Amino acid sequence: MAKGIIHYEVGEQVDVYLLIKSVTKGIASNGKPFLTLILQDKTGEIEAKLWDASPEDESVYVPESIVKVFGDISNYRGRTQLKIRNIRPVHQNDPVRVTDFLEVAPLKRDEMMEKITQYIFKMKNPNIQRITRHLLKKYEQRFFDYPAATKNHHEFISGLAYHVVSMLDLAKAIANLYPSLDKDLLYAGVILHDLGKVIELSGPVSTSYTLEGNLLGHISIMVSEISKAAEHLGITGEEVVVLQHMVLSHHGKAEWGSPKPPMIKEAEILHYIDNLDAKMNMMDRALEKVKPGEFTERIFALDNRSFYKPTFSQS
Amino acid sequence: MAKGIIHYEVGEQVDVYLLIKSVTKGIASNGKPFLTLILQDKTGEIEAKLWDASPEDESVYVPESIVKVFGDISNYRGRTQLKIRNIRPVHQNDPVRVTDFLEVAPLKRDEMMEKITQYIFKMKNPNIQRITRHLLKKYEQRFFDYPAATKNHHEFISGLAYHVVSMLDLAKAIANLYPSLDKDLLYAGVILHDLGKVIELSGPVSTSYTLEGNLLGHISIMVSEISKAAEHLGITGEEVVVLQHMVLSHHGKAEWGSPKPPMIKEAEILHYIDNLDAKMNMMDRALEKVKPGEFTERIFALDNRSFYKPTFSQS
Amino acid sequence: MAKGIIHYEVGEQVDVYLLIKSVTKGIASNGKPFLTLILQDKTGEIEAKLWDASPEDESVYVPESIVKVFGDISNYRGRTQLKIRNIRPVHQNDPVRVTDFLEVAPLKRDEMMEKITQYIFKMKNPNIQRITRHLLKKYEQRFFDYPAATKNHHEFISGLAYHVVSMLDLAKAIANLYPSLDKDLLYAGVILHDLGKVIELSGPVSTSYTLEGNLLGHISIMVSEISKAAEHLGITGEEVVVLQHMVLSHHGKAEWGSPKPPMIKEAEILHYIDNLDAKMNMMDRALEKVKPGEFTERIFALDNRSFYKPTFSQS
Amino acid sequence: MAKGIIHYEVGEQVDVYLLIKSVTKGIASNGKPFLTLILQDKTGEIEAKLWDASPEDESVYVPESIVKVFGDISNYRGRTQLKIRNIRPVHQNDPVRVTDFLEVAPLKRDEMMEKITQYIFKMKNPNIQRITRHLLKKYEQRFFDYPAATKNHHEFISGLAYHVVSMLDLAKAIANLYPSLDKDLLYAGVILHDLGKVIELSGPVSTSYTLEGNLLGHISIMVSEISKAAEHLGITGEEVVVLQHMVLSHHGKAEWGSPKPPMIKEAEILHYIDNLDAKMNMMDRALEKVKPGEFTERIFALDNRSFYKPTFSQS
Amino acid sequence: MAKGIIHYEVGEQVDVYLLIKSVTKGIASNGKPFLTLILQDKTGEIEAKLWDASPEDESVYVPESIVKVFGDISNYRGRTQLKIRNIRPVHQNDPVRVTDFLEVAPLKRDEMMEKITQYIFKMKNPNIQRITRHLLKKYEQRFFDYPAATKNHHEFISGLAYHVVSMLDLAKAIANLYPSLDKDLLYAGVILHDLGKVIELSGPVSTSYTLEGNLLGHISIMVSEISKAAEHLGITGEEVVVLQHMVLSHHGKAEWGSPKPPMIKEAEILHYIDNLDAKMNMMDRALEKVKPGEFTERIFALDNRSFYKPTFSQS
Amino acid sequence: MAKGIIHYEVGEQVDVYLLIKSVTKGIASNGKPFLTLILQDKTGEIEAKLWDASPEDESVYVPESIVKVFGDISNYRGRTQLKIRNIRPVHQNDPVRVTDFLEVAPLKRDEMMEKITQYIFKMKNPNIQRITRHLLKKYEQRFFDYPAATKNHHEFISGLAYHVVSMLDLAKAIANLYPSLDKDLLYAGVILHDLGKVIELSGPVSTSYTLEGNLLGHISIMVSEISKAAEHLGITGEEVVVLQHMVLSHHGKAEWGSPKPPMIKEAEILHYIDNLDAKMNMMDRALEKVKPGEFTERIFALDNRSFYKPTFSQS
Repeated sequence: MAKGIIHYEVGEQVDVYLLIKSVTKGIASNGKPFLTLILQDKTGEIEAKLWDASPEDESVYVPESIVKVFGDISNYRGRTQLKIRNIRPVHQNDPVRVTDFLEVAPLKRDEMMEKITQYIFKMKNPNIQRITRHLLKKYEQRFFDYPAATKNHHEFISGLAYHVVSMLDLAKAIANLYPSLDKDLLYAGVILHDLGKVIELSGPVSTSYTLEGNLLGHISIMVSEISKAAEHLGITGEEVVVLQHMVLSHHGKAEWGSPKPPMIKEAEILHYIDNLDAKMNMMDRALEKVKPGEFTERIFALDNRSFYKPTFSQS
Repeated sequence: MAKGIIHYEVGEQVDVYLLIKSVTKGIASNGKPFLTLILQDKTGEIEAKLWDASPEDESVYVPESIVKVFGDISNYRGRTQLKIRNIRPVHQNDPVRVTDFLEVAPLKRDEMMEKITQYIFKMKNPNIQRITRHLLKKYEQRFFDYPAATKNHHEFISGLAYHVVSMLDLAKAIANLYPSLDKDLLYAGVILHDLGKVIELSGPVSTSYTLEGNLLGHISIMVSEISKAAEHLGITGEEVVVLQHMVLSHHGKAEWGSPKPPMIKEAEILHYIDNLDAKMNMMDRALEKVKPGEFTERIFALDNRSFYKPTFSQS
Repeated sequence: MAKGIIHYEVGEQVDVYLLIKSVTKGIASNGKPFLTLILQDKTGEIEAKLWDASPEDESVYVPESIVKVFGDISNYRGRTQLKIRNIRPVHQNDPVRVTDFLEVAPLKRDEMMEKITQYIFKMKNPNIQRITRHLLKKYEQRFFDYPAATKNHHEFISGLAYHVVSMLDLAKAIANLYPSLDKDLLYAGVILHDLGKVIELSGPVSTSYTLEGNLLGHISIMVSEISKAAEHLGITGEEVVVLQHMVLSHHGKAEWGSPKPPMIKEAEILHYIDNLDAKMNMMDRALEKVKPGEFTERIFALDNRSFYKPTFSQS
Repeated sequence: MAKGIIHYEVGEQVDVYLLIKSVTKGIASNGKPFLTLILQDKTGEIEAKLWDASPEDESVYVPESIVKVFGDISNYRGRTQLKIRNIRPVHQNDPVRVTDFLEVAPLKRDEMMEKITQYIFKMKNPNIQRITRHLLKKYEQRFFDYPAATKNHHEFISGLAYHVVSMLDLAKAIANLYPSLDKDLLYAGVILHDLGKVIELSGPVSTSYTLEGNLLGHISIMVSEISKAAEHLGITGEEVVVLQHMVLSHHGKAEWGSPKPPMIKEAEILHYIDNLDAKMNMMDRALEKVKPGEFTERIFALDNRSFYKPTFSQS
Repeated sequence: MAKGIIHYEVGEQVDVYLLIKSVTKGIASNGKPFLTLILQDKTGEIEAKLWDASPEDESVYVPESIVKVFGDISNYRGRTQLKIRNIRPVHQNDPVRVTDFLEVAPLKRDEMMEKITQYIFKMKNPNIQRITRHLLKKYEQRFFDYPAATKNHHEFISGLAYHVVSMLDLAKAIANLYPSLDKDLLYAGVILHDLGKVIELSGPVSTSYTLEGNLLGHISIMVSEISKAAEHLGITGEEVVVLQHMVLSHHGKAEWGSPKPPMIKEAEILHYIDNLDAKMNMMDRALEKVKPGEFTERIFALDNRSFYKPTFSQS
Repeated sequence: MAKGIIHYEVGEQVDVYLLIKSVTKGIASNGKPFLTLILQDKTGEIEAKLWDASPEDESVYVPESIVKVFGDISNYRGRTQLKIRNIRPVHQNDPVRVTDFLEVAPLKRDEMMEKITQYIFKMKNPNIQRITRHLLKKYEQRFFDYPAATKNHHEFISGLAYHVVSMLDLAKAIANLYPSLDKDLLYAGVILHDLGKVIELSGPVSTSYTLEGNLLGHISIMVSEISKAAEHLGITGEEVVVLQHMVLSHHGKAEWGSPKPPMIKEAEILHYIDNLDAKMNMMDRALEKVKPGEFTERIFALDNRSFYKPTFSQS
């Protein structure tokens, strides 16, 4: 798997293993059925058409199975498409596993666990520390598996934990420059702010929204969770309301999903750190795909902007 | 107290009991201190100036105490003002109590209690019924005391319960015309939608926002309360999420404070019923103060509109 | 016609009568012409392709004619499509009429006429009553034929009258709860508010906008009509301006088409009743198509929201 | 009346005749009544305080009467104020009339009448010509008296007619450069576009909104008038709808009061001409009051902008 | 080339020379490559499919080359398409040149040059005159070649100069009616306002944005150019800042690209003249394509409006 | 000067030196002139009234002079006011200088100079380094004197340089965490982004906008300056356009003053760093004035929000 699927150019031939992400059946103008396959590896995905699909094809080529494909990269309405010449399901002997095709965070789970534990360990305010530790423990398994979103940024396995770790380091650097910031509050806000995503989202693969996700959203879910954690731990201090506010306000504005804007300094900074890390992730991933002197494709979550990579750029 | 304080016109003399709502001290251009008193009765409030205020005056004329005032109604920058000729605190013998000066709901507490109980009694879905009953019971005392808001609509004693009772009757009338509506859900939504105000607001008199009110708001507070109630009652059905959604979405749009818009039919209708009853209350109160052929003053919460009372109007 | 066309699933065979709603000619990649037919019955519509269309086919398969079709339901880019195996125009003997394929209001014309007449009959203000009766009479024929809109809500035969009847019942229920409302004004507003649609729209079938509809809109059309009716009837009272205002303001805001917002209480309530009935209609029609536990498709006119049908839902 | 009242500077003494525009009574901190007078001449207005006002003062100094005032120009919270030393009502012998104090258009009524008549005379389309002439005739008296607005632009006697005359000349100049424009339509649009103001506004002095003005607005009023004129004249051609559209759309956007945006080329140009003439009027009047190198005061109707008069400016 | 390509109707046969504007390769459902050609003449463009394209076809049919095509006009998804029966590249003997297929301004370069020179010649303020002349000279070559935009209005060869000439005539007509306008400033503003487009855009054919265009935009580019011109010419008067402001503010609002709104009267008028001329150009071009009684297609840059050509229209 | 003027509470007596920031003359209701003085020290400002002001008072108490005041702190309409009992101008012997009353940056000029020099020294790209050094040198004197704004944030002497130094440290911390960032570009952007303020603003004391500031703004000014610097230094590389873009886009959105949004990764980060440092400064200054458990006053530039200082806060 020398070269990722998104790096092939129109006209090249491919002979690779790929994971089927989704399948749709259609009827061609000649009246015969065909399958539209979305195939992926760690670098991204590509559409492929399997013409004249037999009923057997339909039963074999299903989502989350791996295929070996031989074909050509062509262009259809401005997007690359894989024209299949030959396709087969993998055998037991093929040296590939599903996880080979899924993107994962660049840090190992243990390292991330260790870093976050250190940040919690250093907290001095016991109420903040206990609530944070309790909720992380309650959802630990999923926290280290889930992506941070279904798309846009950190949409990979362990993306949620990786986003939190990056934000913690950023929070630390900023708090060192502005010592009036309450580090306990800021770190707890970082760790809890998106934890509700483990209830909002369906899981790390083929991620979709749960009913709670659709009807309540991760912010309201986590505000309730903090309330229940405090009740469970018998904590009644102002820290409870303030932590709920940190989570509630971290999207910054009502129209972005926060019914209250940040009204605590650390909440405002949390909103900034969250945005900064998410945007860096989006810009870096888009810029990786272009050469110096080119613009990236438009990034919807960044106001649909394209970004330019200067010709004098080193990276 | 034949005529309410807001019904006097410029040039009239008054000789009435009034409740002090607030007091501010100032220094006049002659260098002497004076007090700006906001005085109220059940019909509304008026500003009064007490010139050359002595230190004793300052200690006697304090908020929530009753005074007997003799003076003239004048006009200051387009608003009526009470020019005090004579003022004194009430004695034990004066036949007045603080509650004589506070506006209250037009229905008695018992009647409202009875009506709401009937609506809960008729619910068929046990999960919805139990959560609704539990939360109403938990905050019953305050629910029947509190106003529905600090201003704009139903801002009087028991205003919250009165608003809920009116909405229940409206919900029933609408559900009879559109039988596809789930009455249990709609009634529960009505009863719970603003219940968080008993935590958001400070109380029935001189109402202000609590810390929870400022940092979280009544919507998020009640979403957490439903979550805790369900945990406490051991209820895990979809009704829990749906009831949380009813409360969460009842302001209709993100910019109006609901992080999720209504995505259940009954939630959309709840939003309408809430708006309709609040607007009727605001319009009626403004129109009561004008004569046929006149416009009301501008109502901020109704997009700053004035309303016209037609000359052929009966009411 | 046991099952409506929208209820077939991909893979099923159909053998049904359908009405041709529209036809477009295209050229296939093999260079041969084909027809894209939009076919409909009372439940909705489906796209079908007639490949290798002969000039005769083009002359036979025209809009508003009925066809018998045999074919398969397939999926094309996420939408169902009818793959035609056999098609023929209907003969005289086929037991079908055009109106069998058009949706109509659930109430009979006579019943609706009777109800509206009763509402007008009960009006006490003669100016309001006469103008309302005059305009209804003037456009009676079309009023009972037209839909309430070209799409979104009540877009079926007699939809306009049906919308008005539902709103009148809602107006009555609300006026009973809030007795300060002027029933005459409210009922007249309901009856007249959308009457301009009989000039704005082209008719009950294949509804489009007329020139007046495009350049003036139903609101301005009806405001002029009231002015002319009053002149014709010799009525000069304030009721004329107030009724014009009811119609003018019933969309609620300038950006929704009302150059003046409601400035009469009954105008504000009319706007609410209109919205409520239209939204109930849209939500009910969308929810009918899904099962408990599912979301509806997005409804553009409801801010592009999907609605969820709870699993515990009875309807 | 050598120098207009707005041209005096703080510290100067004045001894002039002025017209009372409005009077408000207040009570000073010493308990004595005072009158706030808004006094005006052709150049503008100034606030004055009459301290220790007697009941006789109140009955003598009433709106629309003329006074002789001696006093000083001072500054109160950033605005000039006239400090009255001496004031008296005018006698029969004083050589002043009310109209001396009111601003009027710079063109005589006859000249304006003559110009507009010429424009109508040159129209070739009889339907457009007849409707325009009929409506101008119907409201001729008021058309040549009324201002074009209560404030912002052309808010002086005959302002409406003057605005129309300027716009006609502008329309002619533009139509000569872009010959595809239909001059008849454009001239008729100019003449009719604001004619509804003679019903929307109360009159040329102390102008306020009528009930029709408040509830319908001049645009809807004139759309109805065109409809009635066409009925009266027996004209049924497309010109009727197009003229109604010209008037309806001349504010350009829904949020500026036009329920339909311009959808005819001449309607779009009418909107431009209207704006251009109104803005020139506003800018010129504001710039007249400042010297080269200064900024004007903020002009609310021009997005609250200040305009700079360059030091190299000739005018 | 009797009839332009956009004037053919579905079903007609064509046998014409056309310029290839762009080419995209695709793979048909039969697995064979095909080319999508966008072909153009002076009147507009049409899409054509070349099925079963050979490698030689790919090397012959490239952008900016001319072809002779024989084929049929068909309809594909509501747009006309050219079905190619026969195509060949032009020979040396074919009597056509590339410029025959490009739209050009209706005025000759010399005439435009002469007109603009006259306007500059008449300027009285030497600072304004010298800066304007210097910059026009600096970019003269490109100024008379470039379009005024990549799409929307004046998107043809010499469109920029033609737009400026029309605006100068309009500016003159307006300044004659409102003599307080500073003609030097207004004319200079007109000439310089879009001159930055010669740096923002790539050139007169296949126009795209340059890096400066994308990252800075023509407004900022020209503001810098004026600054450099003044430094070069040793001019330091207020005219420099005022001219920069004219250019900077000519889009009228921040959201339309002007970081400062017009704050000089002539800047406001420049913004109007620019808009008026651009809109006239867009409306005329759209209306030319329809018959009386029809609506144009929607014009994106005019708020996506359609315009109606009245049946009584002469043009 | 033990305690700053803003730390006195209502009822306290003061006997302090203060600087006169501004003076306005008024006429009291007794007809006598008075002066409204805005007095300031390093901590902030207070309004004071000098009643019965003599002409001599007017000539003595002028802006930027120092006074000794004895008086009382009172409350006027919710704001503290200084009631003057005694006031005198300072004598030569009074141990105070104007700079004692002006707030200055917490870092010394030399330290800031040294830090910035280091950042420039470390740049590796010679084009970026030379342009940055040239422009800083050109405006060095003013750069270290000017505030960063007239209000909102860093509105003190050397505020501009201090803001830049804080941002450089923040830029370094962030670039260390996200190594793909181009440090040269980021540091140059930080140093140049607000440098145009030395032309936009009038100076460090009584700061107002210059004509260039009003008509062009600091962003456009600096974009021109970079253009001229590059021309002067003979630099033509892409760095010039990219640096101009960094400055041009640093307000992030058109409606915030940037005609182009950030389209370079470092430009996006510059926008963030600028915002973060400005907001920290505003929040810290507001929170310093309140005690734990209190809300700050509303901060206009932070969407008019109040911030809460938790009771468990250490700072």
